[in-house]
Amino acid sequence: MKDITLKEIAEKLGISITTVSKALKNYPDVSEKTKKAVLALAQELHYTPNSFAVNLRTKESKTIGLIIPEVVHHFFSNVVNAIIDEAEKKGYLVIILQSNETLELEKKQVELLINKRVDGIIMSLSNESNNDDHIKEIINRNIPFVMFDKIAKLSKCNKVVINDQKAAFNAVQHLIDKGCKRIAHIRGPLNPQNAIDRYIGYKKALEKNHIPFDANLVYTCENVTFDEGRHFAEKIVKDHKDIDGIFAVTDLVAVGVIAYLNEQKIEIPKKIAIIGFSNWFMSQVISPKLSTVDQPSHEMGIESFNLLLEEMVCHKDGITFEPRTVELDTKIIERESTMKVQ
Amino acid sequence: MKDITLKEIAEKLGISITTVSKALKNYPDVSEKTKKAVLALAQELHYTPNSFAVNLRTKESKTIGLIIPEVVHHFFSNVVNAIIDEAEKKGYLVIILQSNETLELEKKQVELLINKRVDGIIMSLSNESNNDDHIKEIINRNIPFVMFDKIAKLSKCNKVVINDQKAAFNAVQHLIDKGCKRIAHIRGPLNPQNAIDRYIGYKKALEKNHIPFDANLVYTCENVTFDEGRHFAEKIVKDHKDIDGIFAVTDLVAVGVIAYLNEQKIEIPKKIAIIGFSNWFMSQVISPKLSTVDQPSHEMGIESFNLLLEEMVCHKDGITFEPRTVELDTKIIERESTMKVQ
Repeated sequence: MKDITLKEIAEKLGISITTVSKALKNYPDVSEKTKKAVLALAQELHYTPNSFAVNLRTKESKTIGLIIPEVVHHFFSNVVNAIIDEAEKKGYLVIILQSNETLELEKKQVELLINKRVDGIIMSLSNESNNDDHIKEIINRNIPFVMFDKIAKLSKCNKVVINDQKAAFNAVQHLIDKGCKRIAHIRGPLNPQNAIDRYIGYKKALEKNHIPFDANLVYTCENVTFDEGRHFAEKIVKDHKDIDGIFAVTDLVAVGVIAYLNEQKIEIPKKIAIIGFSNWFMSQVISPKLSTVDQPSHEMGIESFNLLLEEMVCHKDGITFEPRTVELDTKIIERESTMKVQ
Repeated sequence: MKDITLKEIAEKLGISITTVSKALKNYPDVSEKTKKAVLALAQELHYTPNSFAVNLRTKESKTIGLIIPEVVHHFFSNVVNAIIDEAEKKGYLVIILQSNETLELEKKQVELLINKRVDGIIMSLSNESNNDDHIKEIINRNIPFVMFDKIAKLSKCNKVVINDQKAAFNAVQHLIDKGCKRIAHIRGPLNPQNAIDRYIGYKKALEKNHIPFDANLVYTCENVTFDEGRHFAEKIVKDHKDIDGIFAVTDLVAVGVIAYLNEQKIEIPKKIAIIGFSNWFMSQVISPKLSTVDQPSHEMGIESFNLLLEEMVCHKDGITFEPRTVELDTKIIERESTMKVQ
C-alpha cells in the first residue's frame, strides 16, 4: 500500500495542505467541521505522519541505542527489560546491539548508532574494551551517553555501577565469618574493570583477616561460563585438598562448581562453602541453594535510562549537563551453600 | 557539537555542494585530488550523512521492529540474539519492544512501529492476542511481516513455527515408552495456540496408547512460571497418589516440579518421571537432569529474519510476495528425569 500524504487528503477534500496539517494538529483557527472531515478521511486512508520528515524537522529520532555484550545472559536481559519498559513509558524506542564481547563489533555498532542519529546511547563494555577511540567519539560528539556495569573508569560520561570491590570484599568476609580459612577465587577475565575490582575485593578481605594471599588459588575464566566453573572446581579439588571456600565471579560459574562437587559427592558447605555473584534466578533453584551477592539489574536499567533522559532533555534545550555517577547498593544473600554449622 | 553539513564542507573548500556530495560517493567525474581533500575535511569535522534525510530520499529506514512477550526468557532471548546478529550482518538495526504478555501493550507497540516506518516487523504474540485488528493492520498496510512461535494461525503472513502438537505427542509417547501409565499435564494458558497444540498432542498420545483421558490430571498455568510448577507438583502429589509421569509445558515449569519433588524426597524418575519442553540450558544443570523437547530457538530467529528480508526486498522492488510458513524440526532429548530402569 502506498503512503498517504497530506496533499492527497487536501485534494480529496478541496482544501489547502496547510489547513489539513493544522486540522491534524488541532489548531484553533480551523473549524470543527473541517477538523472532523480531515480526521475521518485521514483515518479512512490510514494516514500516519511520515516519521522521517518529522525527524528531519525536529532533529529528534525518539530512539536510543543500547549496546550490551550479549542479550542471552540473565543479568543483561534483566537490564534490557528495564530499559525497554522505562523508555517506552517516556516515548522512546530502543535499538539493541550485541558486541558479543568483542571490541571490533562494538566499534562498528557505535558507528552505526551515530550514523542513525539516535538521541542517546547506553552501553556496557565488552571484555576487550576500555577507554578506546569509539568511546571518545561518542563523548566528543556530545551525544547523551551512559555506561553501566562494565564501564571505562576514566571516561567523562554518566555511569551507573555497583561497588564491585566492596561487594566482593563482603562476599569473601561472609565466607570467613562462616569459618573458611583457605579460599579460592574463580575470577573473570583480566581486562574488564568489574572483574579486576572483584579480585581486589577478594585480596583485601584476606588481608584484613590476616589470611595470606596465594596466587595459586586464583583461577581466571576466559568466557565466564558454567563449563569453566566445573573445570576449575575439578582443578581446585585435585590441586588443593585443603580448600574450604570458593568465591566465584558470577552465579553461572558458581553453579558449575556446585554441579561438579555434587557429582563428586563433596559436601557443600560442610567440606567446601561457595558464594557467587549476581543473584541469578537459578541460584535459588539448584541444590544446595547458592549464597550470592545481589546485583540490582532492574534498578540499574531504570537508573541508566533516566540518567540518559536527563542528559537528552538538557541536550535538546541547549543546557550544559555535567555527567554523574550513580552507585547502587548490593547485599549478601545467605543461602544453603554457606550455611555452615558453627 | 553541531552537525556538519555538506554546505559547510563546500564553503570551506571553495567548491560546490554537488561536488562535495559526488566526492563522498566516489563519483568518477570528480578528481582524485578533490576527493582526497573532501574526505580529509569530512573526517576532520566528523561529518556523517544525515540519516533522516537519507531515509526520506530512499524511503527505507534499514530498521526492523521486533515485538516479543518478554526478553527475560531463555527461549526469547535466544531468538532475539539470533535476529540481532543476522540483521546486523545484513545491515539492519533492530528495535525491540515487549508486550509483557498483554494485548493492550502489543497494540500500542505495533502502532509505534508503523509510525516509525520500520521496513518490517517480526513478532511473537502475547498470551492474550490472536488475529486481532492490529495484526490485520500490519497486513493491510502491506508491511513485510513474520510471526514466530506464538502465531495467529489464520493470519495471512509469514510464519516460523514448530509442530507443537507432534512434539508434545512425542514427549508423552516417550513417557509411555518408559512405562508411565498415569500421566499429568501442566499446560500453558488457554489462549495461545502453542499451549493448545501441546495439550492436544498430550491427549492424542494417550488416546493412541488406549490410556483414558482424565480432565482432573490437567493443570493450567496462568503465567508459566517456576512457582506454578512447584505449586502444581504439590497438588498433583496430594490429589493423585498414582501419578507416575508429568509432562510440563516448558522446562521452567518442569524445573519447579523437580524442586518440589526433590524437597519431598520423591524419587525421579523411579516414582514420577518428568519431561519438559524447550531444552533450556538449565535443564542440564539441575539434578536429576531434565528430559525435554529441543525447540530450535536460534534457528527460529535466523529463519524469521531471513524470511522477513526476502519480503522486504520484494516489497522494495515492487515484486508480489506470497507469504510462507516454515516449520522447524524438534527432537526428544532423553536425560535422567525419564531414564527408568525397565
